[in-house]
Amino acid sequence: MSMKLNSQQLSDLAIGAAFLGTGGGGNPYVGRLMAQQCLDEGLEIEIIDPSALDDDMLIIPTAMMGAPTVLVEKIPNGEEAIFSLKRLEKHLGRKAQATMPIEIGGINSTIPLVVGARLGLPIVDADGMGRAFPFLEMETFGVYGVSGSPMAVSNEYGDCAVIQAVDNRQMEWLSRAVAIRMGGCAYIAEYAMSGADVKRTAVPNTLSLAIRIGEVLRRARAAHENPIDALLTFLPSTLYRYGRTIFAGKIVDVLRETKNGFSVGRVRIDGFGPFSASMEIEIQNENLIARVNGEVKAIVPDLICIMNTETAEPITSEELRYGQRVTVVAVSVPEIMRTPEALEVFGPTCFGLSKPFVSIEHMG
Amino acid sequence: MSMKLNSQQLSDLAIGAAFLGTGGGGNPYVGRLMAQQCLDEGLEIEIIDPSALDDDMLIIPTAMMGAPTVLVEKIPNGEEAIFSLKRLEKHLGRKAQATMPIEIGGINSTIPLVVGARLGLPIVDADGMGRAFPFLEMETFGVYGVSGSPMAVSNEYGDCAVIQAVDNRQMEWLSRAVAIRMGGCAYIAEYAMSGADVKRTAVPNTLSLAIRIGEVLRRARAAHENPIDALLTFLPSTLYRYGRTIFAGKIVDVLRETKNGFSVGRVRIDGFGPFSASMEIEIQNENLIARVNGEVKAIVPDLICIMNTETAEPITSEELRYGQRVTVVAVSVPEIMRTPEALEVFGPTCFGLSKPFVSIEHMG
Repeated sequence: MSMKLNSQQLSDLAIGAAFLGTGGGGNPYVGRLMAQQCLDEGLEIEIIDPSALDDDMLIIPTAMMGAPTVLVEKIPNGEEAIFSLKRLEKHLGRKAQATMPIEIGGINSTIPLVVGARLGLPIVDADGMGRAFPFLEMETFGVYGVSGSPMAVSNEYGDCAVIQAVDNRQMEWLSRAVAIRMGGCAYIAEYAMSGADVKRTAVPNTLSLAIRIGEVLRRARAAHENPIDALLTFLPSTLYRYGRTIFAGKIVDVLRETKNGFSVGRVRIDGFGPFSASMEIEIQNENLIARVNGEVKAIVPDLICIMNTETAEPITSEELRYGQRVTVVAVSVPEIMRTPEALEVFGPTCFGLSKPFVSIEHMG
Repeated sequence: MSMKLNSQQLSDLAIGAAFLGTGGGGNPYVGRLMAQQCLDEGLEIEIIDPSALDDDMLIIPTAMMGAPTVLVEKIPNGEEAIFSLKRLEKHLGRKAQATMPIEIGGINSTIPLVVGARLGLPIVDADGMGRAFPFLEMETFGVYGVSGSPMAVSNEYGDCAVIQAVDNRQMEWLSRAVAIRMGGCAYIAEYAMSGADVKRTAVPNTLSLAIRIGEVLRRARAAHENPIDALLTFLPSTLYRYGRTIFAGKIVDVLRETKNGFSVGRVRIDGFGPFSASMEIEIQNENLIARVNGEVKAIVPDLICIMNTETAEPITSEELRYGQRVTVVAVSVPEIMRTPEALEVFGPTCFGLSKPFVSIEHMG
């Protein structure tokens, strides 16, 4: 019920988490290097299955919050999330017995590995989004009743705010203001909860799934098979059940701004091969909705993953560039993320989209 | 060394604090009503002299932070500052034995009275600005080495952020972001300190001075004397030593915006009687600099008080209106506020003004 990560698994995880992150979650390269450095120093990264948690253990998830566009220019020193976790421990008067990702995506799947390795804590193989989302209230933890507060948000200087908000949306609203003034990117500890709550509310086994996804892509590439086909063949054996290619083409326009602490914009892709016309994808840190000629082809919370057509590497939103040849894959999310309670917190309307959620399996 | 305030003293205090607040500190009317309600409920407002504090007592100052223009439309329910004080007590693991104003001006001279009355704590007859200033780092407490952090900032819903910043400027920067997202006006507890620190760093006896100023104006009015003349005659017997009328006329233009959590702008006054030309006063919550034809007539940190010429009531910045007949009085601040260390924290350059500080006694 526990495994120690090696360098190969770290590389696979970075790729797989960037895929699941659906454009967001921050740059996976930076995060992989930070975790690799822990291994190089002889530290252990121990992943434990949520089923192995005692019900009364205290788990404190850790993460980066902010704009991915900022993260690539303002990289962490590695102590910030640890500092937030320790502040939250002090506030709670209790030590964490494990940490965990709040989202599976880019740097936010590896930040908890660094925290765990440095503090000697295991990292729970689960997360609170089953993908990446831009807002902190959009976690299955909160959907199913766990309070995000008290939460701690810190920067590289040692400034820290401990926020106790009346609900998780207020927590997001207030902490985002602090993160913006910390330079647009800060490090948090939040949704402190019991082992029982993790088992009840988390999306399980997403760290090991991300590793498997990275592995599938890597092995296919080595065997000169099509990695994207290999991935689509693999998905039905997972909680994510279903995926398909919804578009392929060349990026002809990227509009991206860092606004209110988020990376927002859209990307336009001109079709190749069987795909005519153009696909337009709207972004708020993550890819939210993909349309061709105004017709919705995939919509949040289902995954919309933009992958490099040649290498099958997922491209996070801050790395999108004119001229990239890309394949867009849509994937169905686990059922825990499609309940009415879940869609109320991170369905299309929560992003100001007027379209209803239609699952990718049923999308025309 | 201790006195219990009555309603008359509260009225006098509201007027006197609005004068010392030099345009800022928030609306005195709202604050007076809140304190009066405490008296109406039979609660006691006990003011103690700083010299009566034991060196090892814990004093936690309380205040409103935000834009005075917001305060007049979003009045407090009276519990917010108490909530912040209690959160800070919990964070410190120690109970406050007194509270205190951080600034003497408008509502911020009466918020601590309400906190003290409701919690049964005495209020120290002193403050940390000797006037009002827009930024939280601009307190004599900080100038002379007291840390503003940890500080608590709360709203009317019970959201609270406890901020531990690396210095007082960062504390201001981060807490201001929270206050803005709380609606532009929030309630704080900060600069928790010992009785010894209060005696060393506070501007003493400013609450009782404000009461005296209000009394001088009231008595002169009742005796059909000129209240402003009476005030200028009274000042030399106080720590503030010197004041004079620097302009009188009619307000012909008010530019006022609520920006970045502050009320900023300028007011133009066309001269009457011996005063020709126009005076222009720049405002950031407080009146910062007064000029006639580009020539400086008074500059921060000295007080620049705009008073109603008929009634001698001080006019706070959010109440300035076209057509008001006003008299502008400048007053020298106590020596503790004019040291090189003090001017480094709240001298003209701290507000982006290029003019050096010249005390009103030496101003041409």
